[in-house]
Amino acid sequence: MTAGEFELIDRIAARTVARTDVVLGIGDDAALLQPPAGMQLVVAMDTLNSGIHFPHDTAPADIGWKALAVNLSDLAAMGATPAWCTLSLSLPEPDSAWVDAFLDGFDALARQHAVTLVGGDTTRGPLSVCVTVFGFIAPGRALRRDSACVDDDIWVSGTPGDAAAALVQWSSGVTRDPALRARLDRPTPRVALGLRLSGLARAAIDISDGLLADLAHVCRASAVRAELDVDALPASDALRAAAPDPDTRRALQASGGDDYELCFTAPVGARDAIETAGKEAGVPVTRFGRIVEGQGVVATTADGALWAPVRAGWDHFAG
Amino acid sequence: MTAGEFELIDRIAARTVARTDVVLGIGDDAALLQPPAGMQLVVAMDTLNSGIHFPHDTAPADIGWKALAVNLSDLAAMGATPAWCTLSLSLPEPDSAWVDAFLDGFDALARQHAVTLVGGDTTRGPLSVCVTVFGFIAPGRALRRDSACVDDDIWVSGTPGDAAAALVQWSSGVTRDPALRARLDRPTPRVALGLRLSGLARAAIDISDGLLADLAHVCRASAVRAELDVDALPASDALRAAAPDPDTRRALQASGGDDYELCFTAPVGARDAIETAGKEAGVPVTRFGRIVEGQGVVATTADGALWAPVRAGWDHFAG
Repeated sequence: MTAGEFELIDRIAARTVARTDVVLGIGDDAALLQPPAGMQLVVAMDTLNSGIHFPHDTAPADIGWKALAVNLSDLAAMGATPAWCTLSLSLPEPDSAWVDAFLDGFDALARQHAVTLVGGDTTRGPLSVCVTVFGFIAPGRALRRDSACVDDDIWVSGTPGDAAAALVQWSSGVTRDPALRARLDRPTPRVALGLRLSGLARAAIDISDGLLADLAHVCRASAVRAELDVDALPASDALRAAAPDPDTRRALQASGGDDYELCFTAPVGARDAIETAGKEAGVPVTRFGRIVEGQGVVATTADGALWAPVRAGWDHFAG
Repeated sequence: MTAGEFELIDRIAARTVARTDVVLGIGDDAALLQPPAGMQLVVAMDTLNSGIHFPHDTAPADIGWKALAVNLSDLAAMGATPAWCTLSLSLPEPDSAWVDAFLDGFDALARQHAVTLVGGDTTRGPLSVCVTVFGFIAPGRALRRDSACVDDDIWVSGTPGDAAAALVQWSSGVTRDPALRARLDRPTPRVALGLRLSGLARAAIDISDGLLADLAHVCRASAVRAELDVDALPASDALRAAAPDPDTRRALQASGGDDYELCFTAPVGARDAIETAGKEAGVPVTRFGRIVEGQGVVATTADGALWAPVRAGWDHFAG
């Protein structure tokens, strides 16, 4: 089943959520949007390419979900409230069944966060999905990478390593755990947690390239050093089953990519409030390190031995 | 010469223009921007894929220019003032010389319009460039597709057909005119004209898919009919030389794509003001038709005969 470009655009437009701050949505040269008075605009843009950012056999609905999720995760890491998005979809051929399935996943997540698709384009090309998301935050409330302070605790949400374990299973052809694969295909952007951390945490980043690599970005931007205990990192039951060897598990947790959890720093006095924020947002939060003077990231195991990851994180050009 | 993802991001960040309304630019999970009070945000997003939107042999600097130009053209068609953009660059391999050349073209146009690159991503994949642009406009001042009125004149800027002629020359291997090729590779977004048309013209659209096809979008959105004289369309000297046959020339002017000129409607009483706006913006403007009751687009030649194009316009999935 094939469709022209304009039919695809109509299909997409018919499924968008209404918002009163969208003056003019899909269908003109550009969208007209009314930002709320006094707020700052928060903007992120991420592309997913087939075979690079998701396995070729990924279901279209999962691609739709993930394309929006990785972008919402960036807004979550700033503590912002999502509002709008644009979508550029490159397809080898127009396939309305594929687009409908893609939109099923995209819309399911958009509705959870009341995000309206306001524009973009559909075009011919190798399968690629580019999304730009827009959110709001009050001035001075953003969680930036450059705000970590000496003596801050270092926290992580959820159970990092699950998505990387799924990817290892997928590429090695061993028995595949659907629970892990769901964490790779349908990451949960921690928007609710990010909103609660604004005003509570200091620095934050979302874990897309691997926990240690992303934490190193925070340390560089804040001119501090991170000391952490890799054995304090939370592991899901599925990860423990998939990676019974401790060092393999540590590597997946500390340097696997695609988690889309939040890593953040906060003053010691905020511990109770952060535990509460995690409970309210429905995601566990775990302390696993501390910010000290210096630079770089130093990881040790529970017995105090220095630990070095096999791989420092995902650099999309290093593969 | 190769470079990692983070080195590429640093190269890109080092070249951006400063703007006081950019609170936080490239380098965090998201950008923080301060929209001007009381203004609406105008947002457009367009992707260029290699071999689809530009010939494979296009110089990287021209790809950089065009990727921003086609987006600024969308803002121009709304009458908006450009401000910021984001860029997602997919490259088969990291090549810092290629990226530098790409940025030469991108920056040259960005500086002309004081547009700051505030974020995006670089990643591995088939060559593809996705840009989102952001501009401002006062409420009620946007030039929308749905605002054409019966008895409006229909105008076009510049000399449509040049880019399509260059594409025909390129694909047929005949002698290639560099003046035409420059119109394909380095289109001029009509931002200055769009700003002057806001409050003067009624409906507007940028000609990316072909003049008749784009005018048909205006007619559909406005529930009106367009009657036009294809022989009133302005032709450049280069186009006349490349396409001496009148019907070939008409087809290129009326249904060639990639012009990035503005097609707009305006009340008869605005003729002098529009001529002045064109002079001030440094681009000729030409009346070639009229809006009437009904639907669709009807084209005639100078002798009054009905004229039908060989091809109605670019549908990116119809090729």
